[in-house]
Amino acid sequence: MTESPGKIVLGPHQYGKAENRVVRIYRDTARHEIRDLNVSSCLRGAFDAAHTDGDQSAVLPTDTQKQTIFSYAKEHGDGSIEEYGLALARHFVDDIAPVESARIEIEEYAWQRVPVNGVGHDHSWTRVGPEVRTAAITVRGSGSERREWVIGGVKDLMILKSTGSEFADFLTDEYTVLEPAHDRILATSLIARWRFSTPPEDWDAAYVGIRATMIATFATLHSKALQQTLYEMGVAALEAYACLAEIRLSAPNKHHFAYDLDRFGVRNNGEVFYAADRPYGLIQASVLREGAPEAGIAWDPYTGTV
Amino acid sequence: MTESPGKIVLGPHQYGKAENRVVRIYRDTARHEIRDLNVSSCLRGAFDAAHTDGDQSAVLPTDTQKQTIFSYAKEHGDGSIEEYGLALARHFVDDIAPVESARIEIEEYAWQRVPVNGVGHDHSWTRVGPEVRTAAITVRGSGSERREWVIGGVKDLMILKSTGSEFADFLTDEYTVLEPAHDRILATSLIARWRFSTPPEDWDAAYVGIRATMIATFATLHSKALQQTLYEMGVAALEAYACLAEIRLSAPNKHHFAYDLDRFGVRNNGEVFYAADRPYGLIQASVLREGAPEAGIAWDPYTGTV
Amino acid sequence: MTESPGKIVLGPHQYGKAENRVVRIYRDTARHEIRDLNVSSCLRGAFDAAHTDGDQSAVLPTDTQKQTIFSYAKEHGDGSIEEYGLALARHFVDDIAPVESARIEIEEYAWQRVPVNGVGHDHSWTRVGPEVRTAAITVRGSGSERREWVIGGVKDLMILKSTGSEFADFLTDEYTVLEPAHDRILATSLIARWRFSTPPEDWDAAYVGIRATMIATFATLHSKALQQTLYEMGVAALEAYACLAEIRLSAPNKHHFAYDLDRFGVRNNGEVFYAADRPYGLIQASVLREGAPEAGIAWDPYTGTV
Amino acid sequence: MTESPGKIVLGPHQYGKAENRVVRIYRDTARHEIRDLNVSSCLRGAFDAAHTDGDQSAVLPTDTQKQTIFSYAKEHGDGSIEEYGLALARHFVDDIAPVESARIEIEEYAWQRVPVNGVGHDHSWTRVGPEVRTAAITVRGSGSERREWVIGGVKDLMILKSTGSEFADFLTDEYTVLEPAHDRILATSLIARWRFSTPPEDWDAAYVGIRATMIATFATLHSKALQQTLYEMGVAALEAYACLAEIRLSAPNKHHFAYDLDRFGVRNNGEVFYAADRPYGLIQASVLREGAPEAGIAWDPYTGTV
Repeated sequence: MTESPGKIVLGPHQYGKAENRVVRIYRDTARHEIRDLNVSSCLRGAFDAAHTDGDQSAVLPTDTQKQTIFSYAKEHGDGSIEEYGLALARHFVDDIAPVESARIEIEEYAWQRVPVNGVGHDHSWTRVGPEVRTAAITVRGSGSERREWVIGGVKDLMILKSTGSEFADFLTDEYTVLEPAHDRILATSLIARWRFSTPPEDWDAAYVGIRATMIATFATLHSKALQQTLYEMGVAALEAYACLAEIRLSAPNKHHFAYDLDRFGVRNNGEVFYAADRPYGLIQASVLREGAPEAGIAWDPYTGTV
Repeated sequence: MTESPGKIVLGPHQYGKAENRVVRIYRDTARHEIRDLNVSSCLRGAFDAAHTDGDQSAVLPTDTQKQTIFSYAKEHGDGSIEEYGLALARHFVDDIAPVESARIEIEEYAWQRVPVNGVGHDHSWTRVGPEVRTAAITVRGSGSERREWVIGGVKDLMILKSTGSEFADFLTDEYTVLEPAHDRILATSLIARWRFSTPPEDWDAAYVGIRATMIATFATLHSKALQQTLYEMGVAALEAYACLAEIRLSAPNKHHFAYDLDRFGVRNNGEVFYAADRPYGLIQASVLREGAPEAGIAWDPYTGTV
Repeated sequence: MTESPGKIVLGPHQYGKAENRVVRIYRDTARHEIRDLNVSSCLRGAFDAAHTDGDQSAVLPTDTQKQTIFSYAKEHGDGSIEEYGLALARHFVDDIAPVESARIEIEEYAWQRVPVNGVGHDHSWTRVGPEVRTAAITVRGSGSERREWVIGGVKDLMILKSTGSEFADFLTDEYTVLEPAHDRILATSLIARWRFSTPPEDWDAAYVGIRATMIATFATLHSKALQQTLYEMGVAALEAYACLAEIRLSAPNKHHFAYDLDRFGVRNNGEVFYAADRPYGLIQASVLREGAPEAGIAWDPYTGTV
Repeated sequence: MTESPGKIVLGPHQYGKAENRVVRIYRDTARHEIRDLNVSSCLRGAFDAAHTDGDQSAVLPTDTQKQTIFSYAKEHGDGSIEEYGLALARHFVDDIAPVESARIEIEEYAWQRVPVNGVGHDHSWTRVGPEVRTAAITVRGSGSERREWVIGGVKDLMILKSTGSEFADFLTDEYTVLEPAHDRILATSLIARWRFSTPPEDWDAAYVGIRATMIATFATLHSKALQQTLYEMGVAALEAYACLAEIRLSAPNKHHFAYDLDRFGVRNNGEVFYAADRPYGLIQASVLREGAPEAGIAWDPYTGTV
């Protein structure tokens, strides 16, 4: 076969322990706190021989990574996921010789205190969702080569507006049968990820604020397209948080079709909708701050879930 | 083969349209309301010939049931799911001749208003979960034979307490290696379903109150077992709501294992846990009010999701 | 409130360990066998005090049930799931005093040998699915009161026929807009569960044969409705297997809608379909052998997954 | 805030219609064929104004993309998914002015004929899984700038070997408690994606052959690590198929832990395992052919599912 006579070689590779379900209770006082986390570690470096020769001498077992994740949860797991991830990533790069870069991906599930006689209970909670806070921390190199990237985010953030959204004056071709819509439901299950250029004063407060800024924009902007809404949400977040370098948004357009009730003599005045599962529009966009530090390997993925 | 010489016959049967995703917007004023529902209809009656002869003359198509569900959403879909379900079930029993009983199962997904400058927005929401409100309404017969049963409920209600739970002094045998626990995490993803003996004054308020009563009991009761906690949650709900005849509870014991950090020289004082997926304990119990109206066919299932 | 003055009491209850993921390798020879199982145990009996008083003295921990399930896998886990379930259920009823009845639910995931040079490999497999074999075994009482029930089954069995199916001449009302169909796709994801009146000679062979009988009927019967198809599948199984007392079938009608291509000048002659997710028709029916042993508590559910 | 004074601008963006569930029946003869597909389209190009100004004049609606996908299924949907994807991608780039590049992602679900009297039925099938065939086709530019990339693949391919696998002689640190294993179960749910440098003679045959080559290597190679196994699987595929430029593999190490039965006086000789859900090792690697055409934007993702 003459088409592709090239030598066959190992390409990029990485490995780690995915989805360690860590629950960290703060109980130094009677009023407990809870951090409910899903932590994945990923190492990159001089692991070629494990692939090409089955030689494990440079391979730190994924079980060891798991032990480290749980042990570090004692000292670092009761604060923000960005700080916990930084501690883990720095450890793997600094203390494990073959590691050139480490990526830590974390999901956090939120809980709220059970109200008892109007007061939040000390040690009982209900889960709040479906949205999930995310972080992806990457640390690479040492000395003057050292670089650290922190990405925060949210996923499965379901937002809906029942008016104030249209879609019209679009391009048409011979397959276009869609009618323009001047008052429709706009709904999505948002994935947003933002890259920090500098650490915020308070990681947890930054998460709350960025999220709030985006959904307030979603609520108040009259939407001419989901594309426009996403862009303005990103702009609002970057304007409010100078510590952000960029934001990436991925949003399914969860279609709600007005149901045809005329045939039953019933007038549907934008009141009854069929919420479709599939297919869905899928809109993806990014908003950047010019002159911000470069992304480097910040976005190189691992589990694909954050 | 002499074991089973009997004639082969059709047994119980039922059919309907499952998982109609109805979204009902109330927009008579600028301040909208939203009901986000998953509605299933189930008919029972004189449909034998469809099975035995392929004769559809008594079969109301499931597509027709879908149309009815969406059309009824206009008039009945903006109130409680119990009332919407009753309207649908009565229609099928009263207006479709072959139908002897109808069951309507509904899931409701909750939304909360987006806060903008401290005020909830008029027509923009975020989803609240993971918990889902449920209802199962059964109507049977006509005239003096008429019976109606209403079951309300909640599922995927995740509750957790980080102390105030123990499990000890249990039965042991040769396979018992479990150590007693005097301070553990207790967590579950609760399914609770309650049968009404009489309609409450306000179906929505009853849902909110029953749910709140149960989780307050979960929070404040010192637990000697998940069995005890479930029972006391049920008792509290029945004591607070005289309109309830019974409550059924199904609760996975979502195990959180204290992680062994001693081997790394780290003291884990009930602070770091591994949240396991499977297996899980699964505890199911019911609490009854003596003398309440009989359940009849109230609990006969259809989709298995409510 | 005078409506419901009755005393509040504990009702039916049961508990166990759900979803133990047991993998049993037979390796007495170089040609291995594999049984990949999901096992749940459920105990019923004198456990009232655990609920009402938090008294665990009669409660065999769910952890102990887990240990038993894994230990029994050594001796009983390399044969049929019906026999393994019977061994476990008998143990709990016979050896644990407070237990009055036990139910064991098992899912089995199938694997097939990797072909290497045309021969199935000794110890390497790929998974076969999506269908899952199921069993639910219930044992109650002792001595002359002893009863045992065995239910086998299959779930997630996806079957489709691209012609030979119609739906017409159905009942209509004012909400009926469906057109009759004389040549449509018929597809479902079948759940079938069959109750044995007597043990077959070979449990594994019975599973293979019952499944094959049902899908051959699905394939060859010209269908006038999914109801008819399900009924005939059940009849065929009961006729072929005298050891069966009854069969229960639950089948979503997975709608495939012919796509309207006329508007693009393309003729769609039953060739291009949209496979819808929700809603779906849901048809449930049972087929019984008259005079077969009674079902007793055979169908009383636990996890709801088998 | 002086850290990030840069202007805020739109970054990369793309959009399309995701998860169109197309079923294409070939019925020119009585012996039907079936293609069961999940098709997503993604367009990139001059869509900036939709984001920044809400101007849709360049935006081809995602609904139009859906219509196109279904209409093209008539002419192109009964062959390989690679060819169908190429037809769609070329159309969007060639016929829709603002489109600079298009990506089509397709999943295919396999069906096998129902055996009736030993012969596969003409028009009835059962689904075969859990594995799913995938393709991702990217077309960019026109004239001399035209480039086309085709990636084929498989996901959810579950493979297991019950012996012939070890993991030992690994790097250790203070968190390492793992014992070396010299005979363990090796199991994964493989995702493999291969990029073609030239079209194979027969796309369907290439899929079958590449998949078979990889699993035969998995079966026959004595494994010193999952890393080694993945690498050798990739090498085998590239050696057997000169039309391949590279292959990317992502594999969770689905841990099977030998269950401790000694405490019950039972000897577990590698026969009884607990199959854990989470955490899992996650190994990712690529194998490249030197000198093959460059990947360009072939791997730029859209839905994240292929």
